[in-house]
Amino acid sequence: MLEPGEVLVEVELATVCGSDLHTVSGSRPGPCPGVLGHEQVGRVIAVGPEAPRCLDGAPVVPGSRVVWSVAASCLRCARCRAGMPQKCLHLRKYGHEAWDETRPLRGGFATHCVLWPGTAIAVVDESLPAEVAAPVSCATATVAAAVGAAGPIREGMRALVNGAGMLGLTAVAMLAASGAEVIAVDPHEHRRDQALRFGAAGAQPVGSPIGEVDVALELSGSSEAVQTCLDYLAVGGTAVLAGSVSPGPAVNLDPERLVRGLHRVVGVHNYHPDDLRTAVEFITTHHDRHPFADLVAGSHSLDDLDIAITAAHRGEAPRQAVRPRPLPFSGDGLLP
Amino acid sequence: MLEPGEVLVEVELATVCGSDLHTVSGSRPGPCPGVLGHEQVGRVIAVGPEAPRCLDGAPVVPGSRVVWSVAASCLRCARCRAGMPQKCLHLRKYGHEAWDETRPLRGGFATHCVLWPGTAIAVVDESLPAEVAAPVSCATATVAAAVGAAGPIREGMRALVNGAGMLGLTAVAMLAASGAEVIAVDPHEHRRDQALRFGAAGAQPVGSPIGEVDVALELSGSSEAVQTCLDYLAVGGTAVLAGSVSPGPAVNLDPERLVRGLHRVVGVHNYHPDDLRTAVEFITTHHDRHPFADLVAGSHSLDDLDIAITAAHRGEAPRQAVRPRPLPFSGDGLLP
Repeated sequence: MLEPGEVLVEVELATVCGSDLHTVSGSRPGPCPGVLGHEQVGRVIAVGPEAPRCLDGAPVVPGSRVVWSVAASCLRCARCRAGMPQKCLHLRKYGHEAWDETRPLRGGFATHCVLWPGTAIAVVDESLPAEVAAPVSCATATVAAAVGAAGPIREGMRALVNGAGMLGLTAVAMLAASGAEVIAVDPHEHRRDQALRFGAAGAQPVGSPIGEVDVALELSGSSEAVQTCLDYLAVGGTAVLAGSVSPGPAVNLDPERLVRGLHRVVGVHNYHPDDLRTAVEFITTHHDRHPFADLVAGSHSLDDLDIAITAAHRGEAPRQAVRPRPLPFSGDGLLP
Repeated sequence: MLEPGEVLVEVELATVCGSDLHTVSGSRPGPCPGVLGHEQVGRVIAVGPEAPRCLDGAPVVPGSRVVWSVAASCLRCARCRAGMPQKCLHLRKYGHEAWDETRPLRGGFATHCVLWPGTAIAVVDESLPAEVAAPVSCATATVAAAVGAAGPIREGMRALVNGAGMLGLTAVAMLAASGAEVIAVDPHEHRRDQALRFGAAGAQPVGSPIGEVDVALELSGSSEAVQTCLDYLAVGGTAVLAGSVSPGPAVNLDPERLVRGLHRVVGVHNYHPDDLRTAVEFITTHHDRHPFADLVAGSHSLDDLDIAITAAHRGEAPRQAVRPRPLPFSGDGLLP
């Protein structure tokens, strides 16, 4: 029986995010047992009383294909009222909560997920490949938040993206789409090559000189990369830090340089519902301009979740896909 | 003969800013000889061809009582076009340029000043005391820029102001006027007492615990104070640094704390023409709510400029006033 505001979704495809790996390896604390997974696309099966609304304002209805936020907010606490539902004092995160026998389905690595009230829900087009839609819930929306925090991106701005994984490649594409000249920095050659395919004007190994930039996005979590972002900022530049979600060494901030440079350093964690909307719009209109679908490998069943996690750890592709139900027959006569 | 866009102003009253003292003492490099002074109010005497416009859109006309920006911008370079005229690639600063025999009057400590084209000019009300109007050109407008960079100030926000000199006291008043609960931090007891008279809810010596704040303004230039600003930021909080205009030790920035806290650290230097407009509006409507006029002591003649500088160095009052011309007779029969 669904509670008021709850939504039951059948999961079509979920992707293994880096955070899931950190939880599995123990480097990110998470309750056990629990259902992991928070990047997925699915179809609404049922809606409880007091149906919530999608981000476009329409009520959530059975049959809709949707993505949803990584967390649910109370929408009543001081932080929610201050416009920061992503830092709600009562925040609940999908794939990150302790097992609750009465409501066990709170993660993406399951056949179904029950959405809490206060979840941002966005309808996605039927034509959008599931591999492209699933990461919107976490990676794409986080990148939308980071790019948004950088301020308006104007034609000809120079932008640095540190880290060319799932988030970094998406950031490269999003910044390039706004007319920025994007330089990606990553220690791995194959990821630098991918950055060029996602619209980067250049891709450099760590430590190469890159020249002044108007925007620097830090998505790798490395303190050295944070320092690089600060050190290369042009006058009026903004550094957005989103990767540093684990303890690490402090970086040196030179107050005079920040003041005289009119620099801004901005932290991004989780994201606002508006960012999910931006992410859906971006991926819907841009997913076929760059090889987004190629970033997601595998098509693991739920029984093979351990195999998916192991493959994700190996890192051959930025994401591994989990399909809780087998692919339906195509119905075009290929099978008897 | 005035050049196109130039304006000749008779200086009514100028105040000695901390930057003037730094130039005199040699801790701020400045060409010599030159005319110091960049905080003043005056009256327009003549306008060159192609009369510039005031910030309210009206043409500058003789007879207007005006304040003007600390610097003039070309309005054509890449930075001006990017919305940063305060960091114009060809910026010229009043009271900070080398003596030019053909245009010697480019500072406030003179009977007259010739304004460059690209100077922001704001009309001030005849009823505004000159002591209150003069600091608008630098101190008040810089504070308006800093408060603006903090983002919208909402009723009940907690704000920290580091340094309770001319800028800090103005910041206290401006933040308190927007409904913030302001805590001022300053090493000197008499300045902490003044902060309370400017609307601070509390005033603490350096090093006292102050609790989390949503906004932290650093106006003292001390690296320790910058660290304090970063360390006390609440989730979603913004630290605005404006005081660090000389080399000083780096501070430690904890990337994870900034990311998880959605913190913003913003540098402010010089200010945008919009900030001068905000400053004039604020001081016009609020100067009699707090003892702003008491912040300016003395009434030195130009011949006594050295005495004014020495008194400013002693720091008994945040500002010393220089009146290039003697006060006019009051004309009400007290003098024969």
